[in-house]
Amino acid sequence: MLTDPSTKYRAFPPVALRDRRWPDAVLTRAPVWLSTDLRDGNQALIEPMDPQRKLRMFQMLVRIGFKEIEVGFPSASQADFDFVRLLIEQGHIPEDVTIQVLTQARAHLIERTFESLVGARRVIVHLYNAVAPVMRRLVLGLDEDGIVALATEHARMLREHAARQPGTHWTFQYSPEMFSGTELAFSKRVVDAVTAVWEPTPERPCIVNLPSTVEHSTPNIFADMVEWMHRHLARREAIVLSVHPHNDRGTGTAAGEFALMAGADRIEGCLFGNGERTGNVDLVNIALNLYTQGVSPQLDFSDIDEVRRCVEHCNQLPVHPRHPYVGDLVYTSFSGSHQDAIRKAFAARRDGDVWDMPYLPVDPKDLGRSYDAVIRVNSQSGKGGIAYLLENEYGLELPRRLQIEFSQRVQAVMDVEGRELAAADLWALFEREYALDGAPRVGTPTLSGQPDGSVQLLAEATLGSVRRPVQGRGAGPIDAFVQGLEAACGQPLRVLDYHEHAIGAGADARAVAYLELRIGAAGTAGSRTLFGVGIDTDIVRASLRAILSGLQRAGIGWAAAAAAAPAPQADPAPTV
Amino acid sequence: MLTDPSTKYRAFPPVALRDRRWPDAVLTRAPVWLSTDLRDGNQALIEPMDPQRKLRMFQMLVRIGFKEIEVGFPSASQADFDFVRLLIEQGHIPEDVTIQVLTQARAHLIERTFESLVGARRVIVHLYNAVAPVMRRLVLGLDEDGIVALATEHARMLREHAARQPGTHWTFQYSPEMFSGTELAFSKRVVDAVTAVWEPTPERPCIVNLPSTVEHSTPNIFADMVEWMHRHLARREAIVLSVHPHNDRGTGTAAGEFALMAGADRIEGCLFGNGERTGNVDLVNIALNLYTQGVSPQLDFSDIDEVRRCVEHCNQLPVHPRHPYVGDLVYTSFSGSHQDAIRKAFAARRDGDVWDMPYLPVDPKDLGRSYDAVIRVNSQSGKGGIAYLLENEYGLELPRRLQIEFSQRVQAVMDVEGRELAAADLWALFEREYALDGAPRVGTPTLSGQPDGSVQLLAEATLGSVRRPVQGRGAGPIDAFVQGLEAACGQPLRVLDYHEHAIGAGADARAVAYLELRIGAAGTAGSRTLFGVGIDTDIVRASLRAILSGLQRAGIGWAAAAAAAPAPQADPAPTV
Repeated sequence: MLTDPSTKYRAFPPVALRDRRWPDAVLTRAPVWLSTDLRDGNQALIEPMDPQRKLRMFQMLVRIGFKEIEVGFPSASQADFDFVRLLIEQGHIPEDVTIQVLTQARAHLIERTFESLVGARRVIVHLYNAVAPVMRRLVLGLDEDGIVALATEHARMLREHAARQPGTHWTFQYSPEMFSGTELAFSKRVVDAVTAVWEPTPERPCIVNLPSTVEHSTPNIFADMVEWMHRHLARREAIVLSVHPHNDRGTGTAAGEFALMAGADRIEGCLFGNGERTGNVDLVNIALNLYTQGVSPQLDFSDIDEVRRCVEHCNQLPVHPRHPYVGDLVYTSFSGSHQDAIRKAFAARRDGDVWDMPYLPVDPKDLGRSYDAVIRVNSQSGKGGIAYLLENEYGLELPRRLQIEFSQRVQAVMDVEGRELAAADLWALFEREYALDGAPRVGTPTLSGQPDGSVQLLAEATLGSVRRPVQGRGAGPIDAFVQGLEAACGQPLRVLDYHEHAIGAGADARAVAYLELRIGAAGTAGSRTLFGVGIDTDIVRASLRAILSGLQRAGIGWAAAAAAAPAPQADPAPTV
Repeated sequence: MLTDPSTKYRAFPPVALRDRRWPDAVLTRAPVWLSTDLRDGNQALIEPMDPQRKLRMFQMLVRIGFKEIEVGFPSASQADFDFVRLLIEQGHIPEDVTIQVLTQARAHLIERTFESLVGARRVIVHLYNAVAPVMRRLVLGLDEDGIVALATEHARMLREHAARQPGTHWTFQYSPEMFSGTELAFSKRVVDAVTAVWEPTPERPCIVNLPSTVEHSTPNIFADMVEWMHRHLARREAIVLSVHPHNDRGTGTAAGEFALMAGADRIEGCLFGNGERTGNVDLVNIALNLYTQGVSPQLDFSDIDEVRRCVEHCNQLPVHPRHPYVGDLVYTSFSGSHQDAIRKAFAARRDGDVWDMPYLPVDPKDLGRSYDAVIRVNSQSGKGGIAYLLENEYGLELPRRLQIEFSQRVQAVMDVEGRELAAADLWALFEREYALDGAPRVGTPTLSGQPDGSVQLLAEATLGSVRRPVQGRGAGPIDAFVQGLEAACGQPLRVLDYHEHAIGAGADARAVAYLELRIGAAGTAGSRTLFGVGIDTDIVRASLRAILSGLQRAGIGWAAAAAAAPAPQADPAPTV
């Protein structure tokens, strides 16, 4: 059993704010959003992003509609310095987007920060130093006066450096680090001293950012702290009040929303809650919570799965299947009574009605998703579930989105046949649906490595009973085959997801590959996302067959002028 | 861009509770916990648990310390009915544990429910019906009086059935379904009518459970609603007031905590937040939040990874790497300045001090975890990360916990050598650490299927340069090999996790297997959890070599009396 916690932990003290106003506030407009995916998020990855991934993330953030993006800590890492230079020199920053860079309150770091920013159009320089008692005592060895002197001295340096680079529109931001673990009166004292140096005006405000560096308390206490600062800070009319919640207690989203209700104008966080430890606050969650309350977040998540794929690719971390608004399972109903209520409510719904759907707080269509009713194949057996039966009887470990795709097919058959399906029925249906009967075939490909590290592939492939050679070049065999098929079929083609595993063992082992494909150009009316499946003794042939299976399902055949020039190249497929 | 949401969604109306008390409340004791992992959780799985998994989950819940466990909806599914019978007839329910079963307010379902409970010692019968306007209108077609009549009529049936089975200690529970979407006054009216039928007393209370079936609003509004009910319900002194939050807005944990601050005595949810859509409230999160505030949750999470493995096995859903308190990454520090502060704070800490560690809200040791400082191998290159280099240069996709394990080894070497390591250095270190140089070898095993579906394995294995035959039987080759090694090495051995993938393609392809092993009996002082790695052209041999690699790392060799009786059997290893 646990040791008695009362000897080791203590409750976070509440704030004596009896006339608090935030619990009666209702949010009516979007805050200013600051994404720190490229700073706090990237910092917390096992594999930090390389420049290509960073640029992909930056461009995704711009497309979503972020106007303020923290892009790094250029004085702390050459990689961050180089990325800031790349953004500026290659002209990646749109006119209405302001980049933000982080720097500690140390002279040589501030100097190096401004070096990295030469030629930038609009920049927020984000200065921080620790103010919390634990850091004053253990790390900095400074008393309160010492901390105030440290902060104001470096705040002054920002003004001086900025004055020397007048071609840039500068905004200054200050974070009293570990605000959530600091005495309120002292936080106010430091912040007031810094803003006295900066002399912001309502026309030219500065940003004061309050981080819950570690989430220590219930979110109502954080809200009380923010409201106290909002009501007590000097020069409040010339300050954009910002918060920077973390999620150590699993209440970061609530803390962020309450802080906005308590008077904050701006919020810093990451997509899907990436960030050190349990993550920074999840900006997608906060934005879409606003959306379902009738407030436009001014951010575009109309294709939320595309955002997720980009984030998963850049961060190399999964988004959980139960993640609000985007998880694989959040628009899936397993319960018969839920399905019944949703069916009736859809039937009763008229165009223009306010959204009032039981069990669906948001219309999945608004986010590019769909509602899925998953029918239990055999719920009375206690071993229900299509996936369960296919795995146990046939060794198939279907990826989750494929499970959902295939369950629609099963449901359609059950609706017609009016009976439950046994494992053998499911397997026959799966074999037919994904053309595993051998129709789309591929010969063993010839692969030759090229001097630039790419691979040249030549393979005989059968599609719609017609055999043709497919020739392509790419980062790996799948990529090369995809490039070749784009030319041979005259269709943009992209691999969105790839899983492969063995079934059976030893001499009988075969590989089964599941590839999620997008056929057609992204965002166009004819574009389709679907799975293909291939089984073969050879793991490469299994993958290539899976691609042909997807094309066959989509009704794609060889183009008339198959040997013509390749179609315009889509984003590269993953290297396999 | 998004369509204008104001035409489609509307804000949830706030509660006019100006004298609310919950924002000043501080939690000082644990609530009554009710796990619905076997009901709401199981209901929401793609693959519902079979009876073995259900029993494993039930026993884990008992070990953690849950005294109230919802075990199913026996009238809705034969599987649930059978599981309730199994628990009762096989005597799995400890004396101090009360099972709970769910039933809709329908006569034949209530009758069937009581049938399933014959012979039970203590039971909570959980009755529900929908009360929300959307359900009254669309699904039930009843007005308010009709709903009250429906609820009271079926509440009476519970009393009558219970009276006929006097050997059981009965507690009645009522849920006004979709409480969170219902007018407060009407919720009170229905609940008061039900408790008038049940006539609870302080000595023999009933349970009133308030579900946020769908989370519609910020959690302060849910708290206001719960406080309103707490202050207005009739017979409050004879009611255990319970809440049942969901997590559609990502604020379920906050809603649960606030509800307890607002007067609720009890909370229903699931481990790690499993459940329909975004999940039921996460009871582990709420319990450990209490713990870090100096309040004992009265639940035992001192080996939280073991709880996670059980839940992942039963639910076949992952726990996210950033999940509070249990995620793989939540005690990992990537930042040099964080690592520095933590190092100083550990050095300054004396036994008996209150826990006040920067960046670590809880002592990982209290949960059976450890703090990990991950050192960037090559952070200046922008392609830092051990895992990144090993994947890009050598094709290894290390499982996350193995990455963390190996990074400790890398750090130790860097501390000695005082230099950054290149990819080739890392590979050499990995090869040495996991004995990939060929020392622990295994011949191609002979596998023969048995009439009962199990596999008999015979293989020559080399450990500590000594070759011996290993013979075992199990559900698959890994399981059989593990059974054989337990006897041959005289050590309990269990496979906790298994990953395998191909490196290279075509004729050159090899398989690399990563197996997480526990050597020694769980919970004993000598027990160790570590990884072994094997590479081979044959996927089975790669797995078996991985097991030998782990044994060699742990310094385990052949037992003297290798041919003696097998050691006591641990839980079965996963079938592969």
